[in-house]
Amino acid sequence: MAEKYVSEAVIGRLPRYYRKLCELEDRGIERISSLELSREMGLNASQIRRDFNCFGGFGQQGYGYQVQKLKSELVSILGLNKTYNAVIVGAGNIGRALLNYKGFSDQGFYIKAIFDINPDVIGTSLEGVTVLSVFEFEEYVKANNINMGVICTPAGTAQDVCDMFIRLGITAVWNFAPRELSCPPNVEVENVNLSDSLYILAYRMNENNHEA
Amino acid sequence: MAEKYVSEAVIGRLPRYYRKLCELEDRGIERISSLELSREMGLNASQIRRDFNCFGGFGQQGYGYQVQKLKSELVSILGLNKTYNAVIVGAGNIGRALLNYKGFSDQGFYIKAIFDINPDVIGTSLEGVTVLSVFEFEEYVKANNINMGVICTPAGTAQDVCDMFIRLGITAVWNFAPRELSCPPNVEVENVNLSDSLYILAYRMNENNHEA
Repeated sequence: MAEKYVSEAVIGRLPRYYRKLCELEDRGIERISSLELSREMGLNASQIRRDFNCFGGFGQQGYGYQVQKLKSELVSILGLNKTYNAVIVGAGNIGRALLNYKGFSDQGFYIKAIFDINPDVIGTSLEGVTVLSVFEFEEYVKANNINMGVICTPAGTAQDVCDMFIRLGITAVWNFAPRELSCPPNVEVENVNLSDSLYILAYRMNENNHEA
Repeated sequence: MAEKYVSEAVIGRLPRYYRKLCELEDRGIERISSLELSREMGLNASQIRRDFNCFGGFGQQGYGYQVQKLKSELVSILGLNKTYNAVIVGAGNIGRALLNYKGFSDQGFYIKAIFDINPDVIGTSLEGVTVLSVFEFEEYVKANNINMGVICTPAGTAQDVCDMFIRLGITAVWNFAPRELSCPPNVEVENVNLSDSLYILAYRMNENNHEA
């Protein structure tokens, strides 16, 4: 059961814990101490205990963590035991890559449809999915059980798309456009900004070389 | 001139400042106070001053920041006045999307070649670029001036690819594989984990709904 006011840093580590536990399970490991887990993850053992304490703690003194049980706790905390129906707006490079990636549906994330505004792209088929017109968006979302919107448009269009999502009751936005979105507090936005990530890498290359 | 020991949080904000300054310049704004900038960005004005002070500070008391000058300082801090020659390993969905995206070269990041291990993919042409075999990788990197490697392989192959980069002197790694990489301290790794980002969005959706 997730409690409120968990810090961004802790939330950011939850997927890493989940991935590590999947890996431990694959390796046939049933039990792990917080010390062993800390070595596996390059994190401090007390940090790990504190992180899990945000959700009630799952270890037993002197026994450690049961891998399968802890993994299923994380599945529940992250909401990966649910189904998410997503639509993509923007059938460019990133939109297509996300549509084609099969790994998301294994975790309960289904990309149901992709929309674009370009008449040359509308009606074409991408991996068996036909690109729909944004003018059909409202009707589609109302008729289907859509609870997540993915923005893969250029920066200039992103806020309009986001506003359309909100108007239609979509309150979870995965934003790949390089634009910060204004949203009411009940809307959750997760940004993936590839250029920002590349700039940070460039910064570190230069910081390291003392060539700035 | 970048100084050492700038915090992760400050580094993470540098691309946002850069993007905002590009936008202000496009809007024809020549000068901005830290208060106005803080409103534009949803950040605290003293935070902004502290961030810029990490690099020597660029404002003038009672005058604010000159947009063009500050932007060019950020270009220099981020190393965007240089040229980066990158290669991609893994011609799957993400590898292809990155290859096709034209925006990176505008900032000095050139994707010179893409490599794969799958014989069905090697030799095919993607946007005018022929997919090369990973067996040609060493020769290619030695013959060309490559200083950045992009990993778009499945998780299981990522560390091997990273080790190959390091052996050939590539010390900047942009990693899209869902695997944490072990690297010597002189190697800079920037991870983009799309699944993690999606898990965090799912977490927030459930935290908000109190349905966990």
